[in-house]
Amino acid sequence: MILDNIKKTADLKKLSIAQLTELCSELRSEIIRITAKNGGHLGSNLGAVELIVAIHYVFDIEADRLIFDVGHQAYAHKLLTGRREMMENLRTEHGASGFPDPAESEYDHFIAGHASTSISAALGMAKARDLDGKSHKVISFLGDGSLSGGMIYEAMNNVAGTKNFIVILNDNQMSISESVGAMKLYLAKLLASRGGLSFRRLVSKSLTFLPRAVARKIENFVKAIIQGNNIFEEFGFQYVGVLDGHDLEKLIKIFTNIRDVATYKPVLVHAITQKGKGYAEAERDATKMHGVDKSHTNKYSGVFGQTIVKLAENDNKIVCITAAMKTGTGLSEFSEKFPERFFDVGIAEEHAVTFAAGLAKQGYKPFVCIYSTFLQRAFDQIYHDVVLQNLPVRFVIDKAGFPGADGKTHAGLYDISMLQNFPNFAIMAPSGRTELENMVKFASEYDEAPVAIRFPKAEATDIKPSSEFTLKNRIIVEGTMTLIVSVGDMLDTVLKAVTISGKHPTIIDVRFIQPFDFDTFYHYAETHEKIIFIEEGVWGGLSSIVTEKLFGDGKQWLFPRIQFLTATKVAPQHTSRDGQLNSSCFSVPELATMLRSN
Amino acid sequence: MILDNIKKTADLKKLSIAQLTELCSELRSEIIRITAKNGGHLGSNLGAVELIVAIHYVFDIEADRLIFDVGHQAYAHKLLTGRREMMENLRTEHGASGFPDPAESEYDHFIAGHASTSISAALGMAKARDLDGKSHKVISFLGDGSLSGGMIYEAMNNVAGTKNFIVILNDNQMSISESVGAMKLYLAKLLASRGGLSFRRLVSKSLTFLPRAVARKIENFVKAIIQGNNIFEEFGFQYVGVLDGHDLEKLIKIFTNIRDVATYKPVLVHAITQKGKGYAEAERDATKMHGVDKSHTNKYSGVFGQTIVKLAENDNKIVCITAAMKTGTGLSEFSEKFPERFFDVGIAEEHAVTFAAGLAKQGYKPFVCIYSTFLQRAFDQIYHDVVLQNLPVRFVIDKAGFPGADGKTHAGLYDISMLQNFPNFAIMAPSGRTELENMVKFASEYDEAPVAIRFPKAEATDIKPSSEFTLKNRIIVEGTMTLIVSVGDMLDTVLKAVTISGKHPTIIDVRFIQPFDFDTFYHYAETHEKIIFIEEGVWGGLSSIVTEKLFGDGKQWLFPRIQFLTATKVAPQHTSRDGQLNSSCFSVPELATMLRSN
Repeated sequence: MILDNIKKTADLKKLSIAQLTELCSELRSEIIRITAKNGGHLGSNLGAVELIVAIHYVFDIEADRLIFDVGHQAYAHKLLTGRREMMENLRTEHGASGFPDPAESEYDHFIAGHASTSISAALGMAKARDLDGKSHKVISFLGDGSLSGGMIYEAMNNVAGTKNFIVILNDNQMSISESVGAMKLYLAKLLASRGGLSFRRLVSKSLTFLPRAVARKIENFVKAIIQGNNIFEEFGFQYVGVLDGHDLEKLIKIFTNIRDVATYKPVLVHAITQKGKGYAEAERDATKMHGVDKSHTNKYSGVFGQTIVKLAENDNKIVCITAAMKTGTGLSEFSEKFPERFFDVGIAEEHAVTFAAGLAKQGYKPFVCIYSTFLQRAFDQIYHDVVLQNLPVRFVIDKAGFPGADGKTHAGLYDISMLQNFPNFAIMAPSGRTELENMVKFASEYDEAPVAIRFPKAEATDIKPSSEFTLKNRIIVEGTMTLIVSVGDMLDTVLKAVTISGKHPTIIDVRFIQPFDFDTFYHYAETHEKIIFIEEGVWGGLSSIVTEKLFGDGKQWLFPRIQFLTATKVAPQHTSRDGQLNSSCFSVPELATMLRSN
Repeated sequence: MILDNIKKTADLKKLSIAQLTELCSELRSEIIRITAKNGGHLGSNLGAVELIVAIHYVFDIEADRLIFDVGHQAYAHKLLTGRREMMENLRTEHGASGFPDPAESEYDHFIAGHASTSISAALGMAKARDLDGKSHKVISFLGDGSLSGGMIYEAMNNVAGTKNFIVILNDNQMSISESVGAMKLYLAKLLASRGGLSFRRLVSKSLTFLPRAVARKIENFVKAIIQGNNIFEEFGFQYVGVLDGHDLEKLIKIFTNIRDVATYKPVLVHAITQKGKGYAEAERDATKMHGVDKSHTNKYSGVFGQTIVKLAENDNKIVCITAAMKTGTGLSEFSEKFPERFFDVGIAEEHAVTFAAGLAKQGYKPFVCIYSTFLQRAFDQIYHDVVLQNLPVRFVIDKAGFPGADGKTHAGLYDISMLQNFPNFAIMAPSGRTELENMVKFASEYDEAPVAIRFPKAEATDIKPSSEFTLKNRIIVEGTMTLIVSVGDMLDTVLKAVTISGKHPTIIDVRFIQPFDFDTFYHYAETHEKIIFIEEGVWGGLSSIVTEKLFGDGKQWLFPRIQFLTATKVAPQHTSRDGQLNSSCFSVPELATMLRSN
């Protein structure tokens, strides 16, 4: 394999075009093989192979700064920068992260996992470089999906005049499945208006900002600089496109010239790629390589999806909003059955929340379905647009808890702590299928104030299901000595630990984290010597709600009995969710030991 | 006064152009008179008078939805919708809010105080209307400053195809003082390319999407619809501009036609206005009406500004970043002395934080200066881009605490609770000038991790200043019985209450909220019967840090001695900061009473 001989980028720079093409093919095979084994983002990584090889070939990977956006396109980059062994264990403990991480390699200059951050980070690095009097390039590698996130425009608004600054827009026209945003149509229009991938038109007018000699030199090479005032040009970029992102030879030629053009003004290169490029061929030999995901219908997200469809059939005020997480949040069926009541706004959590607030203000029942980690983007909108007006927006917070193989950029451990800041905000957590169904129904009928339902990416196993649903804590079992107050899906962990321990504690299932049912809690707390709270989140969630109330009620004497089990504030490394649970205070054996010692 | 006879908008619709012009003049006089008395946003409100009168005249204020962005342009709207008495007490208790608020009037359809939210909210309302089968207009009233905030692009990306949806862009070309963003230049370019305010060019091509008869009718009237693919058109708007936002007669004509055009596609109207229009004339008669603000040099922001300039003179790695808050955060002098190290990125807190992270990654010492309430916009960027990489970004959190006359949209009570979620994040709060100077110096030298300094909009009065600065709590006085643990500027309140009480408690000044100095605290806690924590923020800040540690250290026996004084989670109504302090648990007399009872 050619890849075996790439120890440093100097090795790559010695290769011929034919060898580089072969290298791309090898990288694809590796990516397919590894993701078949470990999961991860297959399509986006396959699509980016030639662009990344061309960047490594043309630019100075040691001195320049390559900053990925979202970062789920970086596998080829990782394979080319001394991480082949780590990539074998991709997304597992001790293996490579699925995202760029400076803690993993000096070739990853900035972390990425959330969208639309790369131009901001790169611009900070470029200004630092300018202040240092240096002139290396800073390159943002951006997917078209990131153009739906507002932060990218905040950054572009500040780019003009920055030299040696390059944005490579990897446009696979697929990033937000089926969602139509104006920017996506706009990119398609740019493609159409440029005559496709012809590369024929070089408009010398574009180069008038250059000294004549330089302009002439560049004119001879750059075949794809196009005239016209497009949006990127209005933001101060030299726009170069549309390129075929899989034509390695031409990419190398154009990148080489962009390297020069960028010394005069910022450049945005628009390349079209095909998501999953090369997979179909590989597939013929290796259908088994890429396991189809198991059905999601038993997962919390699936249960939510089925429930909201049922409710919506009888309640035409129910609308669903997501931010490019339709499938992940279980909304596929809803979107098909009620297209006019379904809104996928793109990777735009801020807009999603305030948009939902507008719908709620007019009497609709918006369900905003967003992963816990991404809801962080909308902290201010939740406060300013929802809470201050006490609008009944329903938040369905998926992947709340440990992030599993996605790792620290995707930790869902902060949502309860974030939301408990706000008054009149009901927060629920289901401990199984029936509980979730009841909570969704409750949320659909509750018009008084905002409400959230948070649950992890896990099976929604019913534990002693009850059709009765109230604001009260659910009593799972009455026992002695120890009182366990379990939040949501932690009930599964608790019951396993109790079985092992041989003890008979009282177990309460917390339905409402807020308003927490203190009546039931106090009732049991007074007759138990030891009280254990367990919630899959950092300190500051239910722990904060309970401690505040104990002070308010003058019940400080209860504190010595209480123990709160919460996640550490240091975000977890990538591994399985079970691995993360087991290496934390939520480990079943540890909890069992704790129970035995009581 | 004509204004006296406007009881409902039907009254306004009966007026002649001459009378409407006179009405504008009256509104200006009222705005100047009221803000001279009560403070508030003078310039932006004066600039918006004709636009608002034209909207009230042309549209159906009862049925249509007028949504303000930021909302500091709404005074004329308030004066026209039955709130003249409330406006007399603008920004004071029982008076009108300085911002739109549905709790105040049915004519305010959505809250506003933070920027760039209006298109999202309006779009939610428009979708609700469409689902309801109704056809009233939804109007977003937007300042050009809001175009620097990313959320507006997230919203625009979702507007295309929405009917009866109008954005009125009030472009005063001044919103971000001296800051240059690409969008601002772009708006200026639109103005220049359209031949100024001539209104002469009607390009019928723009109307081809309309039935011919309608198009012809509109052609006869609309004199300002301009051809060309500008950014707003790429987002799917019919762009109408550039208009003279002070020419009432033409505004009325054009708005009347836009009312029709909007039934076919979304419209963005671009009007140029002059901030402070009409003030110069008024000024001649009434210089005393608008008191010049007292010097800020004794305020925390001023002290920060002076300190950072001094430090930057000897440390060329110091850079300052703000998000359209240069003057407010005390950075005017810095920006003049070190223009190449000063970055005002516009109303773009998300970008500001990640941009700073990029600078920090390259060895610079970025100070990000943002008000507490606006920093909420960057919760996710603080986590994802700063904390996960442990980058030494310095946050200078101004207006942290009660918001005074700005009221609930500007409450600065959530920052400590927000930041305590994160590991390795140092959080300081100064109790006076010298303390702040030392903290800024400390932050400039501390390269290990992110750090924040938070302080209110208040005088930085030195209390027992000490040049020595350590990570330890500062002992103000050693006493008996009660231990008061005071955070930042609360020390002033504490000392006043102690004097009144006649008691002699021990008083500790918390320099580091995180890492909190538990050694000193435990030392005193064990010898005092009562412990009072006092912090100007909601539960979940220092209260959370302390309760978590007490559990970790097995010191639950301390809980019965402790009382936490924190702000209620319900954001405060507008009044003076002193008024807000006095009507809360931070009231000096109440605190004195509490001390006497111990």
